[in-house]
Amino acid sequence: MERAQPLPNYLAQRYHGWKATGYADNQSWYRQLAEQGQHPRAMVISCCDSRVHVTAIFGADQGEFFIHRNIANLVPPYAPDGDYHGTSAAIEYAVTALKVAHLIVLGHSSCGGVHGFHEMCHGRAPELSEKTSFVGRWIDILKPGYERLGGNDAEIDSATLEKEAVLVSMENLLTFPFVQDAVADGKLTLHGLWNDIGEGGLEYYDAKSKTFRPV
Amino acid sequence: MERAQPLPNYLAQRYHGWKATGYADNQSWYRQLAEQGQHPRAMVISCCDSRVHVTAIFGADQGEFFIHRNIANLVPPYAPDGDYHGTSAAIEYAVTALKVAHLIVLGHSSCGGVHGFHEMCHGRAPELSEKTSFVGRWIDILKPGYERLGGNDAEIDSATLEKEAVLVSMENLLTFPFVQDAVADGKLTLHGLWNDIGEGGLEYYDAKSKTFRPV
Amino acid sequence: MERAQPLPNYLAQRYHGWKATGYADNQSWYRQLAEQGQHPRAMVISCCDSRVHVTAIFGADQGEFFIHRNIANLVPPYAPDGDYHGTSAAIEYAVTALKVAHLIVLGHSSCGGVHGFHEMCHGRAPELSEKTSFVGRWIDILKPGYERLGGNDAEIDSATLEKEAVLVSMENLLTFPFVQDAVADGKLTLHGLWNDIGEGGLEYYDAKSKTFRPV
Amino acid sequence: MERAQPLPNYLAQRYHGWKATGYADNQSWYRQLAEQGQHPRAMVISCCDSRVHVTAIFGADQGEFFIHRNIANLVPPYAPDGDYHGTSAAIEYAVTALKVAHLIVLGHSSCGGVHGFHEMCHGRAPELSEKTSFVGRWIDILKPGYERLGGNDAEIDSATLEKEAVLVSMENLLTFPFVQDAVADGKLTLHGLWNDIGEGGLEYYDAKSKTFRPV
Repeated sequence: MERAQPLPNYLAQRYHGWKATGYADNQSWYRQLAEQGQHPRAMVISCCDSRVHVTAIFGADQGEFFIHRNIANLVPPYAPDGDYHGTSAAIEYAVTALKVAHLIVLGHSSCGGVHGFHEMCHGRAPELSEKTSFVGRWIDILKPGYERLGGNDAEIDSATLEKEAVLVSMENLLTFPFVQDAVADGKLTLHGLWNDIGEGGLEYYDAKSKTFRPV
Repeated sequence: MERAQPLPNYLAQRYHGWKATGYADNQSWYRQLAEQGQHPRAMVISCCDSRVHVTAIFGADQGEFFIHRNIANLVPPYAPDGDYHGTSAAIEYAVTALKVAHLIVLGHSSCGGVHGFHEMCHGRAPELSEKTSFVGRWIDILKPGYERLGGNDAEIDSATLEKEAVLVSMENLLTFPFVQDAVADGKLTLHGLWNDIGEGGLEYYDAKSKTFRPV
Repeated sequence: MERAQPLPNYLAQRYHGWKATGYADNQSWYRQLAEQGQHPRAMVISCCDSRVHVTAIFGADQGEFFIHRNIANLVPPYAPDGDYHGTSAAIEYAVTALKVAHLIVLGHSSCGGVHGFHEMCHGRAPELSEKTSFVGRWIDILKPGYERLGGNDAEIDSATLEKEAVLVSMENLLTFPFVQDAVADGKLTLHGLWNDIGEGGLEYYDAKSKTFRPV
Repeated sequence: MERAQPLPNYLAQRYHGWKATGYADNQSWYRQLAEQGQHPRAMVISCCDSRVHVTAIFGADQGEFFIHRNIANLVPPYAPDGDYHGTSAAIEYAVTALKVAHLIVLGHSSCGGVHGFHEMCHGRAPELSEKTSFVGRWIDILKPGYERLGGNDAEIDSATLEKEAVLVSMENLLTFPFVQDAVADGKLTLHGLWNDIGEGGLEYYDAKSKTFRPV
């Protein structure tokens, strides 16, 4: 890796600042975590978006949440074909090895991935339609949800599609046998959330009313 | 999604606490982020491990880092075959759409994924060797690095293998044409880091000495 | 400009050192900043004083803070009379064009401008009282704050007057219609800070207790 | 000031990090600066732009540069009319009180203020033409330079106009009697610089060739 570069100086400075304060103040906890391993209570599947920090929203410290982040917080369907499946691997590890109690899918407003999907469906993002587009193929996961909402024939606003992406991911979670089993055994619960970035809002999917409601 | 559950009460309470404090104190920034979109300066590829929070280490606020997290912070090689590739999609979005300046791979101590790989290689984790194991197939990405270190014939400690995982990911990053191009144009730099959880240590890969050195 | 001189040699040498290190290590970020423009999250109004570097205090890199610096970090009241108003122009640009989320006024200890104001009021700096003194007329902005503290009848220490200067500036900020609007819309927050140079202290104005308190 | 807000949490954290490292490591120097006052060697007039940090470019520590920053690094002509003149006050203080040896005007590429001036001249930014626009009236300072380059009849690229802004400011500096005197006495030198943000370039105005040349 001769292309590797040192850390930019301002990040090195900030790290030293954290080491002298944030780390120093919690050294005992960091050492316990290192020696005794992690025992997170929940797995969160969130977007890579720089504006959504689940640790901030829930005041979570080191050790609480096992967090997978990908474009548009999507979960592909179960497909044990021997290929690389990063999201499925993270879910498998959380449920079968760490035995988390909660599996939370966290969507959000102004999601670039969901927006790109919408543009692609309407022919306004031809580059995403190409077979070689990783983003385009990844967001194809959203298709069943989009069709269910009426597809190209319907007027679908961003928030509706973002929330549908959360539901599609939750449905796909239940195609994994180990998720099914843990849920059936009462050892795992599934939760769908949607965060309004600008307003700091948080809604959860309510199975009874089949709508997202404010937490 | 009739299996969806409301948010556990303690998480709902923490959310309301954040809304009244962390959000309220930064409402203006959240609103600007919502209206003007994200302009993160770096993408970080980190592990799902609950003990590693890159935002804490670097004092990063909402909007600074585009973060992808998967098991063992691995990047698979470029493979535009039309299948779902969540990691590749995140990298493509960060480099071609967001045009981040830095791509940081952050490994860490006591990594369960790297440990599992080692166990699997030595026949001590047969369940990971199965074709249907998502974790097992995902950590296969580490193989070229493991072989390079001597494979099963060598005594390889955890930290060495965790750092090798960072290098394998960086090498695979350079198999993506858009990463190659951005690096060649001087618009993207690659950085390899390894975090010692218990001691709060941070090392970076130094291309000149070909070793990891303290930041 | 026949009076222009080349850069002193020691500064030229330092520049070349930065180009080979600080710039080279962050070339990608500089290029992205040049191509995509700035998106700073905050405007800082600070003193010209050579001892106060807000970028150091907050570990801020290129691109984070839009910084206006003048004598004693003062903001004059809104006066759209068509004359040259450098401070007002900087505020207008930050709030209406860049749409920063935070407006921070940063005062500091041992402020020469504030000290000069005090001397002038007590007749110990007659040159500052002259109409032609730019410094004298500029620091007149402080007068409402000085009167509020009791003026010449009171014993006012330097720190108290420096902090009052921060408050006067914040009050004057709210005389600008575009600042008022952005604050009312929840898109801009105002912050008053005072830095103790020798002790590295930082205090913020707490609206509830109406005092400056340690951060 | 009931509208004042506490410092956002991430900035408070970064400050504590700096206090424990950057400040702690240089405490003796900070204390000396506090007790003995500042003795900067140069005044720098730079833009508010978040991408231009003169302290980084010249490796300047606390105490070296007295820095005034405004939109487009402009200096208005001498006008001792008793009104508020923040830029003139800063220059007066630097030259007559601090007796700096160098006065450096630092322009830069992609300057939003200079760009706005150009747009305004061509009728493409009507809001800047209004009397109430602080930015518009402030950048009027550039007019003599623009006319000299041929004005609306000429094709003027951004860099040329940005460099002309540096020259206009230097010319205006010489309209201040105390600047004239200090230069005539050989106690003050004037320097014009232009920074290419993306490439890390730095050019100085060479009075002999009447062009900007690389440092």
